[in-house]
Amino acid sequence: MRPTGAGARRITPSESVRFREELYEFLRIPSVSARSEFRHEMRRAGAWIVETLQRAGFGAELLDTAGHPLVLGEWRKAGAGAPTLLIYGHYDVQPAEPLELWTSPPFEPVTREGRIYARGAADDKGQIFLHLKALELLLRDQGYLPVNVVVLIEGEEEISSPHLLPFVEASRERLAADAVLISDSAMFAADRPSLLYSLRGIAYFELRVRGARGDLHSGSYGGAVPNAATELARILATLHGTDGRVAIRGFYDGVVQHDATSRRAIQELPFLDEEFMDEAGVRALKGELGFSTLERLWTRPTCEINGILSGYTGEGAKTVLPSHAMAKVSFRLVPEQEPAQIASLFREHVKRVAAPGIEVDVLDLHGGRPWRAHAEGRFFEAARGALEEVFGVEPVLTGDGASIPIVTELERVLGAPAVLMGFALPGANMHAPDEWFPESHIEKGIATLLSFYGRL
Amino acid sequence: MRPTGAGARRITPSESVRFREELYEFLRIPSVSARSEFRHEMRRAGAWIVETLQRAGFGAELLDTAGHPLVLGEWRKAGAGAPTLLIYGHYDVQPAEPLELWTSPPFEPVTREGRIYARGAADDKGQIFLHLKALELLLRDQGYLPVNVVVLIEGEEEISSPHLLPFVEASRERLAADAVLISDSAMFAADRPSLLYSLRGIAYFELRVRGARGDLHSGSYGGAVPNAATELARILATLHGTDGRVAIRGFYDGVVQHDATSRRAIQELPFLDEEFMDEAGVRALKGELGFSTLERLWTRPTCEINGILSGYTGEGAKTVLPSHAMAKVSFRLVPEQEPAQIASLFREHVKRVAAPGIEVDVLDLHGGRPWRAHAEGRFFEAARGALEEVFGVEPVLTGDGASIPIVTELERVLGAPAVLMGFALPGANMHAPDEWFPESHIEKGIATLLSFYGRL
Repeated sequence: MRPTGAGARRITPSESVRFREELYEFLRIPSVSARSEFRHEMRRAGAWIVETLQRAGFGAELLDTAGHPLVLGEWRKAGAGAPTLLIYGHYDVQPAEPLELWTSPPFEPVTREGRIYARGAADDKGQIFLHLKALELLLRDQGYLPVNVVVLIEGEEEISSPHLLPFVEASRERLAADAVLISDSAMFAADRPSLLYSLRGIAYFELRVRGARGDLHSGSYGGAVPNAATELARILATLHGTDGRVAIRGFYDGVVQHDATSRRAIQELPFLDEEFMDEAGVRALKGELGFSTLERLWTRPTCEINGILSGYTGEGAKTVLPSHAMAKVSFRLVPEQEPAQIASLFREHVKRVAAPGIEVDVLDLHGGRPWRAHAEGRFFEAARGALEEVFGVEPVLTGDGASIPIVTELERVLGAPAVLMGFALPGANMHAPDEWFPESHIEKGIATLLSFYGRL
Repeated sequence: MRPTGAGARRITPSESVRFREELYEFLRIPSVSARSEFRHEMRRAGAWIVETLQRAGFGAELLDTAGHPLVLGEWRKAGAGAPTLLIYGHYDVQPAEPLELWTSPPFEPVTREGRIYARGAADDKGQIFLHLKALELLLRDQGYLPVNVVVLIEGEEEISSPHLLPFVEASRERLAADAVLISDSAMFAADRPSLLYSLRGIAYFELRVRGARGDLHSGSYGGAVPNAATELARILATLHGTDGRVAIRGFYDGVVQHDATSRRAIQELPFLDEEFMDEAGVRALKGELGFSTLERLWTRPTCEINGILSGYTGEGAKTVLPSHAMAKVSFRLVPEQEPAQIASLFREHVKRVAAPGIEVDVLDLHGGRPWRAHAEGRFFEAARGALEEVFGVEPVLTGDGASIPIVTELERVLGAPAVLMGFALPGANMHAPDEWFPESHIEKGIATLLSFYGRL
């Protein structure tokens, strides 16, 4: 057992009110990186962080890239001999669509039943906010930090970070760090803090199918020419077998099944399929036969259709025979899989199953390697102790089915292990309508970070 | 051989110029019945016809319905003893979307290389225009028509004529006729006029699939819960067998294969798959094994996917696991099939193949019975003779894969056979971008109608 840290700094009521106001202000900025019309808002969000860091006592600047700007904040007064911690996060958010499924508007944050609802509340603006405020409090209270701290917040995580890595590679010395700390994930449960042990990789594609040169009348041509929508559906239906496995040749090549000990550890975590179904809002589970839900999510690769569009989709009936059809298809990968290899397997598969006379195209939209943690060292142990102190229970090591491709890349370029300590909760609706962050985790998250620095 | 009618009235150059201007004016009105924002334009289009009829010497009025208004024109001076011909057509058009695929704007008619391009140029505004002008010329030249003529032009054909039939049934005596003449189809080829012998019926549905309550993050949930897009694709892929047949139990029950004579007659028509492929803009044909292209189009039922929508379909990558998915699915029917029976077979099929935990819904959007012609009688013979006179070759009897459900219903309620004499050409892009009508068929169509009345 680690110290329970009765002396941990508490947030005062007036700080609590101010923090809420500041967080709301930050969440109100619609920093959607995927849409060019929000370019100005992206800059506003970045500038907001720069000012917040400067007010806290950091040197901070907004660095232009060929895309959205990066925020770089630095506090190096711990001296050249002290270790350096790099905090990574992102201020951009997923598009909020479909807007009509939000209970309240995505960029008008509101608290209902202990949850702060807004796009970005959990992923990741709400979580980087915790770091900004913890650093501010430490510098105000003590005037110093136990380590040098570099804050690197990008604006392109949701569009696969096209400009972060070139910057990191070019600024390797300035960014040199002993560990990378990231809060962009969820705890295992409300009463069970966790540290992330693994993330899946991703390979995301747009599949385009073309039949006729242009749309045709479905009566005058129906039954005699290829229909792009029908052919797309047929291709998509070949992606999974009846056993729930991805039915692409070579997809599982090299994928190692976890050993009995590791499987047992996952199976022993307090997890109920019924609660998970309730949280996900589904009436049945579905996946690869022979694996538990947590194994499917944390340890197995998968294929999901993220979108389909073809032909007439408006009100009423239009008798069109579609010439074009499109699907967004993505794969989640485990450590033995490489995005580039999956891309070529997917391409081969699509070409193999496409009907004669059908033109198919596979566009690479996004790829990222899977990640597995180095679960050791002073930073990892400080995180573990801080979580236990504030939440009153030892954190568990968990996997996450999602992908933060930059984690692997930051570790590789900086040669520093990443510690992933998330404060959102399961069912936070990241990337979906009604995204939320637990109101109480503003204080608990900041308290955990204060304790974390106290342990360094 | 019928008389070649050397005396047929020709259109003068000044009439030709005026007709083109009037047709353009008519085509400029965006009379899209499916979209409520065009309600006012629908009225304008109806009023345009009423005025045109009145100027020609008809009594005409715009009749309100609970939907878009009907045009009713009457000329009854041939007397109670003379037969009555009812001309049916529609002034509404299909939605013009996708607009970006039009070479010139859909409601700005323009003539390029002998083709008049505009939404409705062929279906059906360009064709009812021929009737209006033929009647105008006859009344101006001769002051009389050989038969009583009732003109009935509706504004809801493209949305399945919800208010036409109730009106026809309530006005059975006023509309009493000996034959119904309709120009809403294409000739067999540019050098081969035709009279329609059959039309397929239609049953059109929206299939809705629901998995989770709301969209989920495809990383955090992918591989463990049902994906609505995946499940929809899987259902759609079950609709056809590898033999190209519709794979719904009972779908072909009672469907009679045409006899050898009828099949031979179709096979002997001058038709080249290569030309059809070129016209349709496809690089392969696809359909039910064991049938020629014309048989597939004219004599066999089919199933087409008219549209699909699910999840994220915008620019770039969004890692969403869609909770909802929708497809528009329609069937073309042959005389032994009933839309209502097909609806229940489709519903049963979808329920049978849907995965556990997936909610499916089938909405009935549109249904219409198939039709087969009574290829005889004075009106049919007059049409046959007029086409031969103007085009210089005997018309062939053809089928059409499309549906004009109201044909069967008008025949039934009025007890009068329908004669379907179309002047568009194959590949007219009805219901698709770049719809067109052959410029020369304005004169030829009007000349054919003048000859037709001359033969009554």
